[in-house]
Amino acid sequence: MPQTLTEKILSRASGKNVSPGDVTEIKVDLVAFHDLTGYHVIEVMEDVGTLKVFDREKLVIAFDHLAPPPDVRSAEIQGQIRNFVKKTSVPNFYDINSGILHQIMIERYANPGQVIVAADSHTSTSGAVGAFAQGLGASDVAAAVITGKTWVMVPQPFKITLEGKPARWINGKDIALKILGDFKADYFNGMSLEIFVKEPSAVPMDFRATVSNMGIEMNADALMFVPDQETFNYIKTARGYEPQMVTPDSDAKYVDEYNIDLSKLDPLVAAPHSVDNVKSVNEVEGTPVDQVFIGSCTNGRISDLEMAAKILKGKKVKTRTIVIPASYQLFKKALELGYVQTLADAGAIITYGTCGPCLGGHFGIAGPGETIISTSSRNFKGRMGSPDAKVYLSGPAVAAATALEGKITDPRRL
Amino acid sequence: MPQTLTEKILSRASGKNVSPGDVTEIKVDLVAFHDLTGYHVIEVMEDVGTLKVFDREKLVIAFDHLAPPPDVRSAEIQGQIRNFVKKTSVPNFYDINSGILHQIMIERYANPGQVIVAADSHTSTSGAVGAFAQGLGASDVAAAVITGKTWVMVPQPFKITLEGKPARWINGKDIALKILGDFKADYFNGMSLEIFVKEPSAVPMDFRATVSNMGIEMNADALMFVPDQETFNYIKTARGYEPQMVTPDSDAKYVDEYNIDLSKLDPLVAAPHSVDNVKSVNEVEGTPVDQVFIGSCTNGRISDLEMAAKILKGKKVKTRTIVIPASYQLFKKALELGYVQTLADAGAIITYGTCGPCLGGHFGIAGPGETIISTSSRNFKGRMGSPDAKVYLSGPAVAAATALEGKITDPRRL
Repeated sequence: MPQTLTEKILSRASGKNVSPGDVTEIKVDLVAFHDLTGYHVIEVMEDVGTLKVFDREKLVIAFDHLAPPPDVRSAEIQGQIRNFVKKTSVPNFYDINSGILHQIMIERYANPGQVIVAADSHTSTSGAVGAFAQGLGASDVAAAVITGKTWVMVPQPFKITLEGKPARWINGKDIALKILGDFKADYFNGMSLEIFVKEPSAVPMDFRATVSNMGIEMNADALMFVPDQETFNYIKTARGYEPQMVTPDSDAKYVDEYNIDLSKLDPLVAAPHSVDNVKSVNEVEGTPVDQVFIGSCTNGRISDLEMAAKILKGKKVKTRTIVIPASYQLFKKALELGYVQTLADAGAIITYGTCGPCLGGHFGIAGPGETIISTSSRNFKGRMGSPDAKVYLSGPAVAAATALEGKITDPRRL
Repeated sequence: MPQTLTEKILSRASGKNVSPGDVTEIKVDLVAFHDLTGYHVIEVMEDVGTLKVFDREKLVIAFDHLAPPPDVRSAEIQGQIRNFVKKTSVPNFYDINSGILHQIMIERYANPGQVIVAADSHTSTSGAVGAFAQGLGASDVAAAVITGKTWVMVPQPFKITLEGKPARWINGKDIALKILGDFKADYFNGMSLEIFVKEPSAVPMDFRATVSNMGIEMNADALMFVPDQETFNYIKTARGYEPQMVTPDSDAKYVDEYNIDLSKLDPLVAAPHSVDNVKSVNEVEGTPVDQVFIGSCTNGRISDLEMAAKILKGKKVKTRTIVIPASYQLFKKALELGYVQTLADAGAIITYGTCGPCLGGHFGIAGPGETIISTSSRNFKGRMGSPDAKVYLSGPAVAAATALEGKITDPRRL
């Protein structure tokens, strides 16, 4: 029987042919957690009386949510996880100066066809390279760390085709928001999205990572870009090896299909207080904004910083602006490319490698009554701080244009 | 009667000749507060029923302690202060992307002979340019904001003379720690320190700022560097105007005198848990360290970053390392000079313009059981986070050398 990417990956991982609706145990290729959830993962392991790691090479730990720690409790939790790392000799440990876990995963570890589970919902990011990547709760992740296995109900595969080329200021975020606006946030429950890109180079890896990252916002069990030349090139360039490619069979069956013509996308915004409250930027233009955040595992990559730098070059922000490249590698790259200089010249605050204000953690929390525009992934009440704040989500171009004007601005007008 | 610098400034400010021990009302030339204390200052003003500012040009407000805000309450407080700024049209307002108040004061505002009061103990920093600068409580600062006046008991002037040239890795911090080690933290209560530099260029403004900053750790009412050619050059270069110089009369009387031969200074460290628990770096060498912090209003200036960059160039830190230039200007300068690149290459986390972990605020809090080495000003139990952490204070060279080795290291050995 011809198989979708979902079926191919989960059949390999379960050691038998599986179909949508099957409940099956699967082997995981990578397990990961960060500081905030890692504490709970280790607690569960201690509760069941073992610190055994099924394969130390396959566990990745990164500090990102509360890095550097904003309070004693965070510092204490990180200390406990460092002790775990010492005791278990896990080699793939990334301390506070490294970056956001999901970014580290796609920079260094995730490969096409893998099963990846991690104790964070945005684990879906690794779908960018064609991995079946799922966020799980701490107990399930603890079980996967110990046994190297987890279980799934095989999701219904849904096919999305991207065609055409996105216009200048369009970003992966606009693709994700387009899907969210058209289907709403609960539509894809129980499904996995397989995204086919007609012209692979038209949707670079950074864009794919943003879309995959938002897969969980679509409630999809997984969101995978079908591995193609772009995937191959990205991994070869970033890591120096040629990835083994896994692709769906050409006659595989999908529960449904949907096409997006990228050339027709407008810059989109998710208005408060829901990620699927999607509007064209023109519908909300002029809304005064108190703070701009460009960063996070959703939109803190080089092409995001590049868009922001192009818009802010030689100008000054009118609104306080926080920029956080998603990893150490990205911060260094942004330094080399002059983006850090450009963004600092424009008046932005810059650091790297922390989730920062995305989850209301620290480094730019939303105050009561404030309006924030953010390139991050969620805007429910209280997500970025005060429940009395309003959060608009957008791509980096809209966010940067908004920083310049102090109100939501269509970058195409600049 | 010949006058000390203290007497000259306070006589001018009180409109009559005053002597040590006199209690007198004085006019202030500058008043300042930051986010953490500003909230209380404004609260006091509201309690007495006025938001009147005696002279809007003479009030400076900067967000630094909790910038960018690490929690909702900090964001809320900053919002309230922004409202105060709007209502009062205070022009000298520095939002979260600007820098630490004391650094902004010496970059832009403080002049020789001025009286400066601010709601923060490290206001003494402006003594670097020869201002009588005192930290006051929120109520006293509120009174000064409204009336332009405060009161002092004229302190006993104490003369310190610095002679000789400091060796390569010696910093203003070592001068301050030398004084603290020799006199202990309560010795200068009721006194003002006037520091004469024999060869002005041997003690550059950055070093002076560090020493003045630590004046409050010596319990001095003020610590002033007698304005000289270095002062003049610094202000002229930084601000484009020639400052009016104020100096003590040559035959002025001091309660006591003390000389330091800078050429004989070793790199010094204040061991836990007191700023006057001063030791030569060699006495504590080899102590394992969990985190290094280079920054703060004490040691976050260009020459500090330069020392750190020289030591870390082409190498990698062994200990997690946080570097925070004290202001936006300094971050940009450090970018231009390549220090940001060098420090990032070495693996340090970098941002700018926040007090960060110095006061246990955020961005690198000390966890229980951890040992920190910090270029900041205080190491009492709990200052940087957990009361079960140990904090060593040092200059940037010792801190950077320690970052490289993962244990307290004499930079002269590298």
